[in-house]
Amino acid sequence: VIPARPITQFVSRPGILDLGWGHPAPDALPVAAWATATVSTLERYGSAALAYGHPHGPGPLVDWLIRRIGNTDPRGCAPAEMFITAGASHALDLLISMLTEPGDIVLVDAPTYHLALRVITDHGVDVLPAPTDIAGIEPEMTARLVGGVRRAGRRVRLLYTVPTYANPTGASLPEPRRRDLVDLARHEQLTIIEDDTYRELTYDGTVPRSLWSLASADEVVRIGSFAKTVAPGLRLGWINSDGALIDRLADRGYVDSGGGVNHTVALTMATFGESGAYDRHLAQIRPRYRGQRDALVDGLRDEVPDVTNPAGGWFVWIRLPPGLSGCHLLPIAESHGVSFLDGGRFFPDGRGDDHVRLAFSMLAPADLTEAAHRFGAALRRAG
Amino acid sequence: VIPARPITQFVSRPGILDLGWGHPAPDALPVAAWATATVSTLERYGSAALAYGHPHGPGPLVDWLIRRIGNTDPRGCAPAEMFITAGASHALDLLISMLTEPGDIVLVDAPTYHLALRVITDHGVDVLPAPTDIAGIEPEMTARLVGGVRRAGRRVRLLYTVPTYANPTGASLPEPRRRDLVDLARHEQLTIIEDDTYRELTYDGTVPRSLWSLASADEVVRIGSFAKTVAPGLRLGWINSDGALIDRLADRGYVDSGGGVNHTVALTMATFGESGAYDRHLAQIRPRYRGQRDALVDGLRDEVPDVTNPAGGWFVWIRLPPGLSGCHLLPIAESHGVSFLDGGRFFPDGRGDDHVRLAFSMLAPADLTEAAHRFGAALRRAG
Repeated sequence: VIPARPITQFVSRPGILDLGWGHPAPDALPVAAWATATVSTLERYGSAALAYGHPHGPGPLVDWLIRRIGNTDPRGCAPAEMFITAGASHALDLLISMLTEPGDIVLVDAPTYHLALRVITDHGVDVLPAPTDIAGIEPEMTARLVGGVRRAGRRVRLLYTVPTYANPTGASLPEPRRRDLVDLARHEQLTIIEDDTYRELTYDGTVPRSLWSLASADEVVRIGSFAKTVAPGLRLGWINSDGALIDRLADRGYVDSGGGVNHTVALTMATFGESGAYDRHLAQIRPRYRGQRDALVDGLRDEVPDVTNPAGGWFVWIRLPPGLSGCHLLPIAESHGVSFLDGGRFFPDGRGDDHVRLAFSMLAPADLTEAAHRFGAALRRAG
Repeated sequence: VIPARPITQFVSRPGILDLGWGHPAPDALPVAAWATATVSTLERYGSAALAYGHPHGPGPLVDWLIRRIGNTDPRGCAPAEMFITAGASHALDLLISMLTEPGDIVLVDAPTYHLALRVITDHGVDVLPAPTDIAGIEPEMTARLVGGVRRAGRRVRLLYTVPTYANPTGASLPEPRRRDLVDLARHEQLTIIEDDTYRELTYDGTVPRSLWSLASADEVVRIGSFAKTVAPGLRLGWINSDGALIDRLADRGYVDSGGGVNHTVALTMATFGESGAYDRHLAQIRPRYRGQRDALVDGLRDEVPDVTNPAGGWFVWIRLPPGLSGCHLLPIAESHGVSFLDGGRFFPDGRGDDHVRLAFSMLAPADLTEAAHRFGAALRRAG
């Protein structure tokens, strides 16, 4: 028997409750609602839904998304400030491709989304972690670092960060620090790439205002995504920036040649949004993911001191007991039937193995409770 | 009244029969069949259709596409030789990004697909037209050019061509020349990027075998697309190459991060293929596009000497009467209610304005007949 070739990225490992995957819970995906939106889109728009699309993204999605974004942040965006992408990672890849030259240095938050490090370095640039303190990126030290890098003859123009419900920490940059960071960008002529993927997944309180909303000109380019709010397989996201950069994106040869980067799905998302399905879906998944977070955090509090409760997003970032490394703990944890990602991969410079990232997005509450206890048992064994 | 933002790339110009667009005929797009395939895919695969997909592309599409390709060419491809892309232009953009460095030279056929020139030069490389004769790229002269470029200290590794039912000429490279071209690539350590977008759109005779089928190792990377056979808005295509390059593509940071580049659409295409809808659709559109070709070519034969009849694809390439330029003719033609693309844009070096490209893909036969007569009237006025 030839085993079937894989369909999805997820690999099931029997007996292991795997907190390594930052994937949505399968039964939280809007399977029936997406079918309805597709049929409705093809009926309504006919061949226009399958033709070469507008390079900036189809008008109905731009219109709906601008209204939606206006509800989630003090600053919305104008139509000229919107470009529809094939997901957040595609957005980052495009931006790095267009805004860097090989040999440049790109500053990154530390820790930061581990695959973003690979997306960035794919373009022949080097990443350098920005100096951080307990609140996040530390603007004054970062300004000094930028000065030093430039005096050494290296070009540095970009800073990548996930300031809201961050991957991997779940933490959000405090508002005063956000203001300082945007000021830093203005004074140092940096562009901040704000990965705002988790904005809609708030469980407690209100979501912090975006860096985008604090910018006065082109200090911030914002990336958004439907991967966590609707479905990752759709590959749909967006970029907000000043109009000049948006036009350069739309004028990219392959974007013009393709008629946008994901037209049919984008137009279907417009229907999903306009019909109310997006709002209904978010109203379902927010309490669901909040419940999953509570199950994991409550379970961990029986096992680990000082567990931070993330107010949104999908991740809990755990500092290990002194002397214990994530890479050392991992095989012990897997022998106890639980897995995670070691913290080292979220830093570009070898730090981080004193932490691990636990994702609560994919598993049901009972499994998350059990995973927390297995994690505690592994800690006791390793310690 | 605020005008609605555009949905598609096409811009209607009342009174003009526009042969400039290489777009499918709107009523040739499989609107109902795609809705059926989507509903069926979401029912059958459930959440797996919306989850992060396998980075190489979902197994069911890889399996079906390999069988399909095996029916169109003497050489099929192995699963390890297949990577699913977000269209042919995306494939080219990825390949140029991965296989060149800024400052490289990329050889191109001349004339060649005009937007490919922009896709390539977006990456900071220079394009250089390969020497051609009446049959197409001339291998011996091309080898000399490569030698000269390399002696001048420039790196040249890639050659881009559309050898089958080419854009813009409609012509196909003869088989002996195909063999010579692959030999050239082997001897000169070039990689040919074979854009095989039009393979399935054969109207007379049998389609020429691919360059891919003549390669013995990694001389050829082939790009395929569903844009002309199914629908461009889907943004779906593929790359065939040796397994090492395929693995590098799948390991690209943004591909891994996104779970492939267009998962839901790709899995839906597997259903569209397996269900027989793909075969039924091709059986409908081949005679349709053949009829459109006949209408344009027959109409032109009343107006222009020596019209070549393309055996496949979407384009007729017209040599203008001596002394007449495409750019000069265009406004006269538009005043006669017909438009086209001037030939100069299909060359990177200023040649080509003695030709124009007429696309017969988008208009109905009666409109194509009328467009041919308007074109003839414009020629008489301009001459």
